[in-house]
Amino acid sequence: MHVALIKYTPDPELTIAVAARLCYSSIEAPRIMEKMSEGQIESLLKQLLASGHLSPFEHANFTFAIGGISRACSHQLVRHRLASFSQQSQRYVSFKKLPYVVPPTVEQKPALKEKFEEAVEAAHRVYADLLAAGIPAEDARFVLPNAAGTNLVMTMNARELMHVCSLRLCPKAQWEILQLFSAIKKEVEKVAPRIAARLQPKCMQLGYCDERESCGIMPTRAEMNL
Amino acid sequence: MHVALIKYTPDPELTIAVAARLCYSSIEAPRIMEKMSEGQIESLLKQLLASGHLSPFEHANFTFAIGGISRACSHQLVRHRLASFSQQSQRYVSFKKLPYVVPPTVEQKPALKEKFEEAVEAAHRVYADLLAAGIPAEDARFVLPNAAGTNLVMTMNARELMHVCSLRLCPKAQWEILQLFSAIKKEVEKVAPRIAARLQPKCMQLGYCDERESCGIMPTRAEMNL
Amino acid sequence: MHVALIKYTPDPELTIAVAARLCYSSIEAPRIMEKMSEGQIESLLKQLLASGHLSPFEHANFTFAIGGISRACSHQLVRHRLASFSQQSQRYVSFKKLPYVVPPTVEQKPALKEKFEEAVEAAHRVYADLLAAGIPAEDARFVLPNAAGTNLVMTMNARELMHVCSLRLCPKAQWEILQLFSAIKKEVEKVAPRIAARLQPKCMQLGYCDERESCGIMPTRAEMNL
Amino acid sequence: MHVALIKYTPDPELTIAVAARLCYSSIEAPRIMEKMSEGQIESLLKQLLASGHLSPFEHANFTFAIGGISRACSHQLVRHRLASFSQQSQRYVSFKKLPYVVPPTVEQKPALKEKFEEAVEAAHRVYADLLAAGIPAEDARFVLPNAAGTNLVMTMNARELMHVCSLRLCPKAQWEILQLFSAIKKEVEKVAPRIAARLQPKCMQLGYCDERESCGIMPTRAEMNL
Repeated sequence: MHVALIKYTPDPELTIAVAARLCYSSIEAPRIMEKMSEGQIESLLKQLLASGHLSPFEHANFTFAIGGISRACSHQLVRHRLASFSQQSQRYVSFKKLPYVVPPTVEQKPALKEKFEEAVEAAHRVYADLLAAGIPAEDARFVLPNAAGTNLVMTMNARELMHVCSLRLCPKAQWEILQLFSAIKKEVEKVAPRIAARLQPKCMQLGYCDERESCGIMPTRAEMNL
Repeated sequence: MHVALIKYTPDPELTIAVAARLCYSSIEAPRIMEKMSEGQIESLLKQLLASGHLSPFEHANFTFAIGGISRACSHQLVRHRLASFSQQSQRYVSFKKLPYVVPPTVEQKPALKEKFEEAVEAAHRVYADLLAAGIPAEDARFVLPNAAGTNLVMTMNARELMHVCSLRLCPKAQWEILQLFSAIKKEVEKVAPRIAARLQPKCMQLGYCDERESCGIMPTRAEMNL
Repeated sequence: MHVALIKYTPDPELTIAVAARLCYSSIEAPRIMEKMSEGQIESLLKQLLASGHLSPFEHANFTFAIGGISRACSHQLVRHRLASFSQQSQRYVSFKKLPYVVPPTVEQKPALKEKFEEAVEAAHRVYADLLAAGIPAEDARFVLPNAAGTNLVMTMNARELMHVCSLRLCPKAQWEILQLFSAIKKEVEKVAPRIAARLQPKCMQLGYCDERESCGIMPTRAEMNL
Repeated sequence: MHVALIKYTPDPELTIAVAARLCYSSIEAPRIMEKMSEGQIESLLKQLLASGHLSPFEHANFTFAIGGISRACSHQLVRHRLASFSQQSQRYVSFKKLPYVVPPTVEQKPALKEKFEEAVEAAHRVYADLLAAGIPAEDARFVLPNAAGTNLVMTMNARELMHVCSLRLCPKAQWEILQLFSAIKKEVEKVAPRIAARLQPKCMQLGYCDERESCGIMPTRAEMNL
């Protein structure tokens, strides 16, 4: 898996702070922008996060290049609807080589891993045979496995990143999408550390775990008598 | 593939007409509703469609049970973001039998079909072996093919149905999703014939084909000197 | 203010339960639907709400006729983007009479109320004069006050209703939109009591108040040492 | 009215082109990005626009500071749901001075203009009186007119900008929002001329006017026998 932040709204935290300040101000955004200090940005972002006033976080957008995730993972990922995706097409791209993902539980057991890899490669050989027999790629792909790798470009704003991370950084989330959003968090950290600090599992915002059983980060609601 | 309209906004065309009329009226919706005749609904809907005033069509919602489409198709389908999906999970459901979809191009050639089916069944056997060896379903599914069948419930409003059909009922659309939206159109016809009549490829609304080459329904824009 | 639920997805709670069950089942929605008992719906909905698995609630849609709210209120209301609105137009409707809303704080003080009503009526007279002088309604309306009444049709699904109510039923919300969503809740109660029970201020879901100062329903997070 | 593009996705046209190319490529986005020439961007964007393949345009976001538009205009503007808005609040800001907008049809007639301005100023005086009498700003604002000025920050992606401009740059659109999106187009021209070129009324994309009567830019569909 490769994740790179390729573009983002410049000065993302300043942009958010200016938009938020505008709501309570009689002056216009460009003048607010000139005057805002790092300290003011810091304290305003804190306040917004504490009070759940999250809409200004929508003004900061982040565009990621994501490579080598499985189609199983991409099918989950594109269910998030407040984001933009451009994904490598299995209809239009023919795969001479088939990059693929091996789950860690399989990776750890050499005998299973061998069986897994043989299955993926056998599927790829049938795919190649179908293409050779004149079947179009969009139909030949029906034999390709969920493990097949895919690339995409994803744009998501900071508010939605916080929401998605609240679900996908939970240690109980599916491992590949958890790994993906951990990598995304690392990328955001480089350019927007205050936003990145808030990319965290839901329990850390709630103050408790709302699953049936806790992973240990936070006690469940029942355990806290809430 | 099975498609059934399981629920929908009652009187969908009346609902749209009332919402549209309200915009230009000094009286409230319940009174408009009482007074509206079939003829008025008919002519108002025509006018809305002709002028591209489509937002009132959002008030009529349709919920479909969709069964036996491939995961290749569902991955495409869920890219439509102005809709609600609840999909059978390959993480939580273990498949003792694996329903699957054979593309027509493969179906037509017995030798290829046999090869295809063997490949799918071989993948399913490895899947079963991985489960038996203690691998969780969410990881074993990595060997399952795109051909694997899936079930889902989808809710979409009439405006979005018109938009999606404008793309997916084009004869050049991928065959399975074209088949899916043809079946959806048939279901809508039973309860909202005027809306169903508008579920049609884009060219029929535009008056020309905006692809490079036409399928023959409409001439291309270039051919019409537009 | 008048609020009437004019249309909704039939059997809204069953619809949600079927969609949710499908995710974990090997059978298709129509068969799940046949077999589901009231008790099963009840316990499944509880479980979904407790675990925050809210997407199935999107399959139940509710369409409301809303009349006599102020344009101040409608401007706030249409900021909710996961909903459909058809609103009476001040561009196309000319108001011979101007219905308007008086805030309770003004209503309570006769002298202020008189001043307020004179102001609104004076504005309406200038509006009528502008129309009479040939100014189009879309420009004459510039003198109309925020207090001016408006009618609209709004469709919102149960998930978004829960979200919006979590904000707008807070006793600290602006009074008119709080009153609007209280009326909406009453309408939903008649047809979907389990969903209506969950239309409540955010604190009742969180277990604490996340505002700086609590209204008294729940202690603040700080007061609970969370 | 003041409009300033305060932030945007750097290299917006390159970003779109890379996302689009990725769909048909076996290599990842960062490598595509390195290799793409100006000529390739140019021809790819043309092709995307001609074929209506618009989703890659979502990866380029634009954040505008908008000042001095009327609340009549902002109420229309925020109806566009695929955008992010942070707007100056009339609940939290008290207006000692009331900036306001005079429609051109009124501006042109001195007698009407005087009447209009007196009405707005009279409303503002009552507003000030209500505040002085202890009425909270959120209620005093009920007497303020639609003409009252407001400031906001708006983020919209290139795809949605194209859609909104297709409606709002029509010469038949309401004059203030037409003026707003004309100013927005000028701002986009400075940094993304190829995108800006496509910010145009719907008729210029369709090849005909779909209103009942044409303004003259394009003949109506009926006039073209389409």
